[in-house]
Amino acid sequence: MSNSIGEKFRITSFGTSHGVAVGAIVDGCPANLELSQEDIQKELDKRKPGTSSVTTPRKEADEVQILSGIFEGKTDGTPITGVIFNKNQHSKDYSMFKDTPRPSHGDFGWMMKYGNYDYNGGGRGSGRITIGHVIGGAIAKKLLKTQNIEIFSHVTQIGDIVAEPQDYDTIKENIEKNPVRCGDLKAAKEMEELILAKKEEGDSVGGIVETIAVNVPAGLGEPVFERLDGDLARILMNIGAVKGVEIGLGFDVANHFGSQINDEYTVENDKIITKTNNSGGIIGGMSNGMPIVSRIAIKPTPSISKCQDSIDLNTKENKKIEIKGRHDPCICPRVTVVAESSTAIVLADHMIRSGFIHPTNLKI
Amino acid sequence: MSNSIGEKFRITSFGTSHGVAVGAIVDGCPANLELSQEDIQKELDKRKPGTSSVTTPRKEADEVQILSGIFEGKTDGTPITGVIFNKNQHSKDYSMFKDTPRPSHGDFGWMMKYGNYDYNGGGRGSGRITIGHVIGGAIAKKLLKTQNIEIFSHVTQIGDIVAEPQDYDTIKENIEKNPVRCGDLKAAKEMEELILAKKEEGDSVGGIVETIAVNVPAGLGEPVFERLDGDLARILMNIGAVKGVEIGLGFDVANHFGSQINDEYTVENDKIITKTNNSGGIIGGMSNGMPIVSRIAIKPTPSISKCQDSIDLNTKENKKIEIKGRHDPCICPRVTVVAESSTAIVLADHMIRSGFIHPTNLKI
Amino acid sequence: MSNSIGEKFRITSFGTSHGVAVGAIVDGCPANLELSQEDIQKELDKRKPGTSSVTTPRKEADEVQILSGIFEGKTDGTPITGVIFNKNQHSKDYSMFKDTPRPSHGDFGWMMKYGNYDYNGGGRGSGRITIGHVIGGAIAKKLLKTQNIEIFSHVTQIGDIVAEPQDYDTIKENIEKNPVRCGDLKAAKEMEELILAKKEEGDSVGGIVETIAVNVPAGLGEPVFERLDGDLARILMNIGAVKGVEIGLGFDVANHFGSQINDEYTVENDKIITKTNNSGGIIGGMSNGMPIVSRIAIKPTPSISKCQDSIDLNTKENKKIEIKGRHDPCICPRVTVVAESSTAIVLADHMIRSGFIHPTNLKI
Amino acid sequence: MSNSIGEKFRITSFGTSHGVAVGAIVDGCPANLELSQEDIQKELDKRKPGTSSVTTPRKEADEVQILSGIFEGKTDGTPITGVIFNKNQHSKDYSMFKDTPRPSHGDFGWMMKYGNYDYNGGGRGSGRITIGHVIGGAIAKKLLKTQNIEIFSHVTQIGDIVAEPQDYDTIKENIEKNPVRCGDLKAAKEMEELILAKKEEGDSVGGIVETIAVNVPAGLGEPVFERLDGDLARILMNIGAVKGVEIGLGFDVANHFGSQINDEYTVENDKIITKTNNSGGIIGGMSNGMPIVSRIAIKPTPSISKCQDSIDLNTKENKKIEIKGRHDPCICPRVTVVAESSTAIVLADHMIRSGFIHPTNLKI
Repeated sequence: MSNSIGEKFRITSFGTSHGVAVGAIVDGCPANLELSQEDIQKELDKRKPGTSSVTTPRKEADEVQILSGIFEGKTDGTPITGVIFNKNQHSKDYSMFKDTPRPSHGDFGWMMKYGNYDYNGGGRGSGRITIGHVIGGAIAKKLLKTQNIEIFSHVTQIGDIVAEPQDYDTIKENIEKNPVRCGDLKAAKEMEELILAKKEEGDSVGGIVETIAVNVPAGLGEPVFERLDGDLARILMNIGAVKGVEIGLGFDVANHFGSQINDEYTVENDKIITKTNNSGGIIGGMSNGMPIVSRIAIKPTPSISKCQDSIDLNTKENKKIEIKGRHDPCICPRVTVVAESSTAIVLADHMIRSGFIHPTNLKI
Repeated sequence: MSNSIGEKFRITSFGTSHGVAVGAIVDGCPANLELSQEDIQKELDKRKPGTSSVTTPRKEADEVQILSGIFEGKTDGTPITGVIFNKNQHSKDYSMFKDTPRPSHGDFGWMMKYGNYDYNGGGRGSGRITIGHVIGGAIAKKLLKTQNIEIFSHVTQIGDIVAEPQDYDTIKENIEKNPVRCGDLKAAKEMEELILAKKEEGDSVGGIVETIAVNVPAGLGEPVFERLDGDLARILMNIGAVKGVEIGLGFDVANHFGSQINDEYTVENDKIITKTNNSGGIIGGMSNGMPIVSRIAIKPTPSISKCQDSIDLNTKENKKIEIKGRHDPCICPRVTVVAESSTAIVLADHMIRSGFIHPTNLKI
Repeated sequence: MSNSIGEKFRITSFGTSHGVAVGAIVDGCPANLELSQEDIQKELDKRKPGTSSVTTPRKEADEVQILSGIFEGKTDGTPITGVIFNKNQHSKDYSMFKDTPRPSHGDFGWMMKYGNYDYNGGGRGSGRITIGHVIGGAIAKKLLKTQNIEIFSHVTQIGDIVAEPQDYDTIKENIEKNPVRCGDLKAAKEMEELILAKKEEGDSVGGIVETIAVNVPAGLGEPVFERLDGDLARILMNIGAVKGVEIGLGFDVANHFGSQINDEYTVENDKIITKTNNSGGIIGGMSNGMPIVSRIAIKPTPSISKCQDSIDLNTKENKKIEIKGRHDPCICPRVTVVAESSTAIVLADHMIRSGFIHPTNLKI
Repeated sequence: MSNSIGEKFRITSFGTSHGVAVGAIVDGCPANLELSQEDIQKELDKRKPGTSSVTTPRKEADEVQILSGIFEGKTDGTPITGVIFNKNQHSKDYSMFKDTPRPSHGDFGWMMKYGNYDYNGGGRGSGRITIGHVIGGAIAKKLLKTQNIEIFSHVTQIGDIVAEPQDYDTIKENIEKNPVRCGDLKAAKEMEELILAKKEEGDSVGGIVETIAVNVPAGLGEPVFERLDGDLARILMNIGAVKGVEIGLGFDVANHFGSQINDEYTVENDKIITKTNNSGGIIGGMSNGMPIVSRIAIKPTPSISKCQDSIDLNTKENKKIEIKGRHDPCICPRVTVVAESSTAIVLADHMIRSGFIHPTNLKI
């Protein structure tokens, strides 16, 4: 198994949902970045369940400990290890899935591949594993902030409810005001109601999360195989439950002619910009200085309490399955911070790789 | 710059559209695979321009030469190098773009990044660079065929024309019968007309290409960062002009509830399968034995002869630009083989990485 | 900074000598290997200081905790994290070195590179960092044992005292009987006396450690850049204080003619072997089935209490330096387990890479 | 098989001695480096056989062609491909080795690993494969020269003849004056005689090659697993026939006390240097600004015409073997440029990785 991502700014993630601990090592963060446990905890709190009506009532304290990499309040250039010791894990909820794979859940692939399946709460396929992403993302965000780069994610669709587009400042303000983390407060209200209705039914619902990164310089990414869009697509598709990734206009490009959506150049305040941003800030695999805009499609949580058809892996007989437990009816709100983190990890890596941030020492 | 992709089955691509040659090295193909120049040429011919009404009339002979890696008709375990010497390149067509970036074309990012821009035909940002992908893909396909895995791509949408779904055998049969490589012959006719109309206008049009891989065993990919869907998303998004990637139901998952789209298990011919394939053959980052289905959104070719706004990079003054030359009005038909190749490269790599194909020697 | 090594069996090491903890993640160990905390602790105890006359009297409990990767007594295919929380660190001993680099110690390079030097006990340049190697090596050894591969290291020289060659069984027996871990008990006694004499003088002494791996199959390693000898040389030279690596006859090949040292083939018990093993088990970069024999040259500990010349990094004035503290007068005995571990890590990685061990699941 | 080395400055080598061509791709060379075919040819000519009394009389034209990566006399940031089409290969010389492995030659490992052995001239185990190293090294040297770094190698020992130490200027002058490329002209004469005597006898002889790199800045390399000494040891040990690598004092450290060989600091011309260079320019895995000095032990060419014992791989019967053909009696003189090239590749890579050379564009 490989649990690392990134070339120069590299995350290695570890742990299972019901093991001793989960966490991540960040290797390649330059020395002399001011960094505290609070910088990481603040981001982790965004993905913590049990904090609002629309998430699972499961409480997870999720207090991060830093084991290495910080000396006198700054990174020292050595690997930064963040760990959260697991608590409040109900192993008893899961034993019934040992031989009966849950529809659209990763456990079937896991059983086929590893044999020795940790059926307690999804093992490394659990959403809890994104704690490692968020630890890495929190450090990446702090590093990117030294270059004035800012990243934020918001929910743009839940089921058939689609948010109205807003300007970036409104979005940033609004996402903190509603449990769905939607930038349009009116849609947010309807989304919340839909999620609660599905929760009531023991069902779940999907949605779309958009991520925006501003102040990214032109020239990140490379033209053929280490393109910025390719690396973003990979890390975003790697988030559990994501089934689609698009940049800029995304799938809607199929419906257009070149003359309609080409981004023409102009100059504003002595800087070359494009009049439109249908490219989503990336052309030819490289950033062009415009905001980088991606969207991901998130499937409904596969764990639903409605009765479903499965089989017994040993006898191959049909079996009915009802997945009780405290599952999120919609993970989109909690995915926002994971999308932000994943985007930050890729951008931090490419900022170092492309020479915008010194690989070793922020001060040099 | 990095021009390699894959871990065990690894492609390194080289060359520019107007340089001496383009090509690729495939490192990591096991020894003892029967392989000929024709196996590669056959695939390259699928992307060759000048072969139908809907592509550029530019002729490219594109005859591949194998410089290494084959001994007595079989791979010998050493790197396989395929090269095509460039001919028929009209450098004169491009000099006007030296200081005036083309809207939505990669040259602006390139100029910002490398300084020393090869303005002759797009340098390494040219579509011609996908010759390397196809060389790699042809070898990957031959290797996968030893495991009974088959991959094919078809056009499902051009502009507002959407193909009707067909069964896989019909699609495979139909794509060879029309220049658009669409699986639905009725839609294909309309697509062709739309493309020709746009060509006439000096405009271009986008579309969607779907790729299907059948007989892939369960257990390819890893649960967190080297997921099969993430690796597919990366290589597909890395294809120039692609702005979106989706697996299975893709973005449509956002519109659904879990109870509607979860793939329930059943047994058929003693094999565990799912009744539906909304997951597109991948759950929890790993293949589940069902067909792997991806779709990519391809933007209209940015090179159009209609008048567009740009700027002069040196003076920052506004400039008008009209891109003459023999450009494809729609690259979707030619992208199909690139999508097949990219998918094959990822699957070949993961088949070796997951232990389904021996890393060194096919016979062992 | 990069703190990982290995491709399929991959160690990522973290922590500093005076930080919160040190440890390592092993990613890529196949599922279903029986593994316990004791398997790792047993190896760590071999490098623990304070256990004999010839090591530093500094006590380090060094009790490993496993945070992830084991489920019901077996590896589950997920990353295995081992951590040791630091205790008994005397930070006060080191503050004087903040601006005065110690001769032949890594701190000068560190200061030049990272700026923000952790002067407390050598930071990540400390010998304590090899705990990560040993955690990785312990797991590698357990994995190799399933293939009947065994690895052991012994001291062959300290200062001018050279051990007499012994057969492998004698060496393995003798190294447990003397604190120097030398295979020749007579030489061991003299070595111990030399080390104690140097300790008394506040000086230190160098030596040579040989590592032997038996039952390695032919065919590990690749012919050009991922040769087995190259990978061994890298990991062994990466051990702090090592200034030379040789395989088989090593530097002595320079003194010979081909007709004297070529390893001729013969057949023994129906197996093709070589009559001599001057190649040390590796020819053309690949293992040939004979024992793999390497030797490393270890310099005297640079930390000596004798007065030495240094400079003040800020004023560039000459300064005298005397390095008090509880340093090892000779680290060779403690390096043996690090050499074993490093060799095991490379062999485990290549056993998986070459298809001798399944990459995912030991049972398959 | 993997045929790449380097992280940011990355060589991928291809071809076999009797195939169509041999060559290498250099990926990651920044744009805007002045580079010509002659820069590469000049280095290749140093390893060309048939140029002196002490090498094989086999003639190889070895004229390099550059297929990509140079635009208007400068690198353009894209992969640089250098290729040499093979000529004058006597396949008939080799067929007898198809089933009879040559003592201490790589073919046995190859046969065991790949099955499909290219017995014509050693396949990819041939010395001819180092053409790829030299192509990469020539480009690396040109890049390093922009930073004032210079690298040279010389023969210090052949059999029992050891050169007297000389200052660096004398060495550089003398190596061009004798076919052995030894820095001591008196020893060079004796070495030449020994080599010719062994050639006469159908035997071969080993030796030692030293490489020196001057003006390397302090701070290259990383403290634990990507140490500069580890990376040098790997690439040098990867050269065929090398059985040992040492840095600075090397194996002789075993014979010394810390007080004898610690490199004390002083200041000269306002720069911090060490009074001695027993560390060979590397401490704690990082360069310290002093000359980087390595030595490699090269075994006698295994191909000798004296009668040797081997076996038939199929029948396992004993067989006698005499290796006729035009083999080098001593490859040390021709290895010098390979050692220079290998060292240059590692240093160029680390100069980029450590932020001393911009990863993309020399001008920025």
